[in-house]
Amino acid sequence: MARFHSVIPAGGIGSRLWPLSRANAPKFLHDLTGSGHTLLQDTWDRLRPLAGEGRIMVVTGEAHSEAVLEQLPQLRESQLVLEPSPKDSTAAIALAAAVLMIREPDVIIGSFAADHVITSNTAFAAAVREAVAVAATNRIVTIGIEPTEPSVGFGYIKIGSELEVDHAPSARGVDRFVEKPKIEIAKQYVASGEYLWNAGMFIAPAALLLEILAESEPDLHSQILALAKAIVDGSGDVAMPKIWPTLKKIAIDYSVAEPAAEAGRVAVVPASFGWHDVGDFAAIAELQSAGHKGGLSVLGEANVVSDSSSGILVSETNRLIALIGLEDVIVVDTQDALLITTKAHAQQVKNMVDKLKSTGHGDVL
Amino acid sequence: MARFHSVIPAGGIGSRLWPLSRANAPKFLHDLTGSGHTLLQDTWDRLRPLAGEGRIMVVTGEAHSEAVLEQLPQLRESQLVLEPSPKDSTAAIALAAAVLMIREPDVIIGSFAADHVITSNTAFAAAVREAVAVAATNRIVTIGIEPTEPSVGFGYIKIGSELEVDHAPSARGVDRFVEKPKIEIAKQYVASGEYLWNAGMFIAPAALLLEILAESEPDLHSQILALAKAIVDGSGDVAMPKIWPTLKKIAIDYSVAEPAAEAGRVAVVPASFGWHDVGDFAAIAELQSAGHKGGLSVLGEANVVSDSSSGILVSETNRLIALIGLEDVIVVDTQDALLITTKAHAQQVKNMVDKLKSTGHGDVL
Repeated sequence: MARFHSVIPAGGIGSRLWPLSRANAPKFLHDLTGSGHTLLQDTWDRLRPLAGEGRIMVVTGEAHSEAVLEQLPQLRESQLVLEPSPKDSTAAIALAAAVLMIREPDVIIGSFAADHVITSNTAFAAAVREAVAVAATNRIVTIGIEPTEPSVGFGYIKIGSELEVDHAPSARGVDRFVEKPKIEIAKQYVASGEYLWNAGMFIAPAALLLEILAESEPDLHSQILALAKAIVDGSGDVAMPKIWPTLKKIAIDYSVAEPAAEAGRVAVVPASFGWHDVGDFAAIAELQSAGHKGGLSVLGEANVVSDSSSGILVSETNRLIALIGLEDVIVVDTQDALLITTKAHAQQVKNMVDKLKSTGHGDVL
Repeated sequence: MARFHSVIPAGGIGSRLWPLSRANAPKFLHDLTGSGHTLLQDTWDRLRPLAGEGRIMVVTGEAHSEAVLEQLPQLRESQLVLEPSPKDSTAAIALAAAVLMIREPDVIIGSFAADHVITSNTAFAAAVREAVAVAATNRIVTIGIEPTEPSVGFGYIKIGSELEVDHAPSARGVDRFVEKPKIEIAKQYVASGEYLWNAGMFIAPAALLLEILAESEPDLHSQILALAKAIVDGSGDVAMPKIWPTLKKIAIDYSVAEPAAEAGRVAVVPASFGWHDVGDFAAIAELQSAGHKGGLSVLGEANVVSDSSSGILVSETNRLIALIGLEDVIVVDTQDALLITTKAHAQQVKNMVDKLKSTGHGDVL
């Protein structure tokens, strides 16, 4: 574990969580579980015991730097990488990997999204420890979540053969990664016991991750390395505005995970802790741990009077909200925008956001 | 028609229309039809051609005097009677009748609530003209609405024998008034063709109305007369605070209409114009004439983006409101309170208001 260093890519707006989550206040900056901490803070608290507070790097948009530093006051300048614009996960994670590798060539990084919910920090830590042990055998390692239902909202990992790695008794090879399936396929996956949810967690030697990137995306790789050198040299302010805008947008799943899986270089540690990417308000309603009022989950300091309504209410205003006879409703009350829908339509919030974008309502997005 | 003088009792909060309608902004001060005018203004405009703008008296709460004068700038001081507190319809209408009778002993008054919706002003005027002709034969006259459905929300009038009154070919006697019935009874009423909706409109010589009140409620009658004399003498400011608080609260249906009906002194002019007391948001949704967005009625300057939702949306804020996949929803968005329910629960808004009253939320009522 001495080689281990955490990376938290804190990006993505979370359009399905509009109007709570927005361009200037994305998902990871919100408390979506009623824990009293934001998703970013919960991620930090989960990683801190693993490598120590000084060995966590956050990669986020320049626009969020102030909010991130406010939520994580213990974060030092050298632990924060700021993106001038969103360039998808490869740029974010590879840049962190490259900076860390230059500082410490045999570093093993673990990348964990800032906006996921994990219910057991102990089980998570155990899985990460196994994953680090496997990564030390020069593999890309992911943590796969044992599915509790045939979700069509997540990608899956087909489990491969058993591995024999010390301190990693549950580690397995990975046959392949598969995209979000249709429901019939998802049911087959779950029934077979051979598939895990892909939670987007990657643990690997930074050098290996960059080596695979060099093969799959050589231009991106060399740009990232140049950027990382500049950052370590203290000239990041000059290099960033020049190089960053030219980077290719590509998810790390395509640039690293899948090519590595095809090359037989990916392992998985199956884990059964509660995990969710909190993709929409229906998921929040289920995850909500506090503030239940009858069948109604309440997030925020909402002043609610409900008459036998069920669903979820999120309020950022101090208005009185009266609900009568609503079933599985979703209400999100903010200063300048109000969303009302139902749990069954939670996924369609993204379409609504697209509609707002195209009809000149960008000011509330 | 030279004897005719209109009275508009403008009272009643309209609890079922909370949070739009409130103690300090009751139903009649709102535009509930999308006509661009408030219900009070529409009532005024409907009565103006009948007796002239100088022969309309408004009786309302002291708290609403400013708002009423703002909405009806042409109203002179002598046309406005201000109630220090709500004392039900007998006090309001009888006081107006007494003031007008003192000024003009043979006046025929017509009392029309400030918060009803009538779709044809021409048909309304024709009915009032007939009613005035019948009232001139010294009768209490009401206008009964031919029912279009077996409503349980209105009282009914049992039609009596034909009358022979010049200029009032459709006038009939009234057998009796009946309270809001259960649905089975309402169906029988409508099927029989012998019942009309009681729209609470009364046309009668002021002297006759007060004569019947003197028999049924002698104390109230003498208090009202004393008050009216004081008002006409210019000492209303002194008499009102002394006498008004002691007045009995009683609806004019019980103090005048029913006793008069038992004595065979009530007539009815059946009418078939569209009429509604706009008792709840479900009624508003049906009455809404403008602002339809698909199946969604929109009242106010709402900034709405809807994805196949139906129902009614009332907005007093400039927030963006996004609705997705809601059926027959009612959304009322005001600065300090938000109501969300469904058309099927529209009547339960009153219970919610009672609940808010008893739980210390009086500030938003």
